[in-house]
Amino acid sequence: MHTVAVVSGGMDSVTLAYKLANDGDDLTLISFDYGQRHRKELAFAATCAERLGATHEIADLTSINRLLAGSSLTSDEIEVPDGHYAEESMKITVVPNRNAIMISIAAGLAVSRNADRVAVGVHGGDHFIYPDCRPGFAEAMDKAVSLGNEGFAPDHFGLITPFIEVSKTEIARIGDELGVPWVETWSCYKGGEVHCGTCGTCVERREAFHDAGVSDPTEYLASLESGDGQ
Amino acid sequence: MHTVAVVSGGMDSVTLAYKLANDGDDLTLISFDYGQRHRKELAFAATCAERLGATHEIADLTSINRLLAGSSLTSDEIEVPDGHYAEESMKITVVPNRNAIMISIAAGLAVSRNADRVAVGVHGGDHFIYPDCRPGFAEAMDKAVSLGNEGFAPDHFGLITPFIEVSKTEIARIGDELGVPWVETWSCYKGGEVHCGTCGTCVERREAFHDAGVSDPTEYLASLESGDGQ
Repeated sequence: MHTVAVVSGGMDSVTLAYKLANDGDDLTLISFDYGQRHRKELAFAATCAERLGATHEIADLTSINRLLAGSSLTSDEIEVPDGHYAEESMKITVVPNRNAIMISIAAGLAVSRNADRVAVGVHGGDHFIYPDCRPGFAEAMDKAVSLGNEGFAPDHFGLITPFIEVSKTEIARIGDELGVPWVETWSCYKGGEVHCGTCGTCVERREAFHDAGVSDPTEYLASLESGDGQ
Repeated sequence: MHTVAVVSGGMDSVTLAYKLANDGDDLTLISFDYGQRHRKELAFAATCAERLGATHEIADLTSINRLLAGSSLTSDEIEVPDGHYAEESMKITVVPNRNAIMISIAAGLAVSRNADRVAVGVHGGDHFIYPDCRPGFAEAMDKAVSLGNEGFAPDHFGLITPFIEVSKTEIARIGDELGVPWVETWSCYKGGEVHCGTCGTCVERREAFHDAGVSDPTEYLASLESGDGQ
């Protein structure tokens, strides 16, 4: 089974890649440079590919970044908010239609490399803020990439989202069992020297490790207000 | 109604734009530079936008072209075949997952510009060769862009494909009624000085005008073997 996996370099997608490798898949990893401030995550995706002996491709979408304006992830003029994902303020981190764009390009790559399927690491906890991480969206995209490449890809070609009903805490547990080297994953949206510890994705990362009872080797700039989790 | 229409500069998509303008839509046109040999079509899309007073954006996808290899439309090493679309040989003109990629990016643009919907000009005659021009695919993409942008786009946000059950002959009739300036449209996949007249899309163009009883002002390099149609 040859799978093209969308890997950002974060803990979800890296765990996805380790899981697929553990299942015996041949892997091609694809990452996207869409002008995100935290593009240092791309180096973490490359390390993941290296560890797993997978091919790694980076799709450069910086030229279309100006067409997808308005997100704090890609605009220097909009600050990345601190706080928990489940807050209205986090909507500013949405890049319009990002997952559909990434999945479509990954599917095009998969067809041209004769791969069997595309995998993305969207997980249960993403649903609240990001509509393009919900099961209904994933089902529609699966259908679109399957029907859209009929006759040019294997009959079973489609999109898989193994973590779509899985919490990030559970992903931390799964990754721990698979031996994912967590220091080789990057979450922080601010893309600084070390993880900020306070943006939505840092908060979520810390909570996941804490709740899973998994030791968190990440260096954070700021400790959590509550003082727990570390 | 603000519609983002994918316009290549060909007769179908230009007719689509004229139809939407005639219906009273505010228009943003988006074209794609994906390294196609016939990228001169982009200038025709720009002219269309100018005529209709629409905003025009070109999404530069040349940087990901190498990831979507294997089509005669983008590779200098593979020749564009002559003949009719309904032939096996035309499969070489397929760019893997092209429409899903274009629709996804157009939808991202639409969300960031607060538009109401995305429109593409795929038509009935495309179904045979291109799986990403079929109704099932279009329905899945409509669902994907609608669900994937829930809360960030108007409730009715989605994809429309007004010509998906319409033949190219009928499009020639519709365009003629709308006063589409046909000399300002480009079809030929070879992208030469004038239309070659013999590649799949040229043959289809000539047949459409002929069968519709619409005068064809296009200059072709070669006349049709059958001698009719011109």
